[in-house]
Amino acid sequence: MAQFANLPGIGSRTAERLAYFVLKQPAEEALELARAIHQVKTKIRHCNRCYNLSETELCPICSDTRRDQTVICVVEQHKDLINLEETGVCNWGYHVLLGHLAPLEGTTPDDLTIDALIKRIQNDGIKEIVMATNPNMDGDGTSLYISSLISDLGVKITRLARGLPAGGSIEYANKNVLIDAITGRTEMR
Amino acid sequence: MAQFANLPGIGSRTAERLAYFVLKQPAEEALELARAIHQVKTKIRHCNRCYNLSETELCPICSDTRRDQTVICVVEQHKDLINLEETGVCNWGYHVLLGHLAPLEGTTPDDLTIDALIKRIQNDGIKEIVMATNPNMDGDGTSLYISSLISDLGVKITRLARGLPAGGSIEYANKNVLIDAITGRTEMR
Repeated sequence: MAQFANLPGIGSRTAERLAYFVLKQPAEEALELARAIHQVKTKIRHCNRCYNLSETELCPICSDTRRDQTVICVVEQHKDLINLEETGVCNWGYHVLLGHLAPLEGTTPDDLTIDALIKRIQNDGIKEIVMATNPNMDGDGTSLYISSLISDLGVKITRLARGLPAGGSIEYANKNVLIDAITGRTEMR
Repeated sequence: MAQFANLPGIGSRTAERLAYFVLKQPAEEALELARAIHQVKTKIRHCNRCYNLSETELCPICSDTRRDQTVICVVEQHKDLINLEETGVCNWGYHVLLGHLAPLEGTTPDDLTIDALIKRIQNDGIKEIVMATNPNMDGDGTSLYISSLISDLGVKITRLARGLPAGGSIEYANKNVLIDAITGRTEMR
């Protein structure tokens, strides 16, 4: 019970219920959970190249030779990579920063994987860096900091488009969204 | 009571309360409301040029000589114009379509102010049309229809940027928003 209660969002009552459930569960099923937890902590590691979660030295994305590995999409966290991949339109490699700059919370450039990103740009023939940090203050700050660091490495630096979200409406869009949409307007083809 | 109950979102109980309120109100205040309603229906009309709501033949925006009237922002409804104006970054004129194309609901091009828009482009030296219809299926359809009509009038046609909404996050963005953001990515300066 005490171990379950340690998990986020699980109070003492739920912990009790879970513990009794495990008690009644067939041994094989309960041990499956134990094994899964064990594997997460022993087998899952960061990809040596892009810091994606991986079971191997290089993650499946970095080992995928059909991808255009000269384009690197820079994301804050693993979840963002997953979400971008689910669109099915990304054929590039990634670099996971493992966070964003937040000086007030004590996250400095040294806490992120920026050095590794710079080495990749210098050594791996990278042509384009796509900044895909979150469209908020922390994400923008992180993108600006990194792009200033790599601006003289001869690589093209882009960022995800900012504007009206598909399916939304102008009537309920807030001011900053509208300003992005107005200033970033594109020619129709 | 019957008259109040005709208004949207006002049931019989609220109508009763409002009616008694008016009954107790000083005559001057109650008549102010009557006057306002009367004025809306007698004084407010569509601007002759852009179909914005106006008390005069030309609305304040069309009469504003400090604006760049060679750029016209095309919106579906008056509320969208107000919302765009509130950003404070628009220095252009407008054209209110008074709706969007919705064949299934019976809204055809003749119901919109498209003819008037074409006349403005032909006669008023318009240089750019900014499509600012809603970023959904109806709005996109309307934009595409209009842009195909005016594509050979020698005017530049743009549309509001589509992508991640400012202040949002990649983790919770939906697939269509992400695809817009990826395909529309822009170079960082």
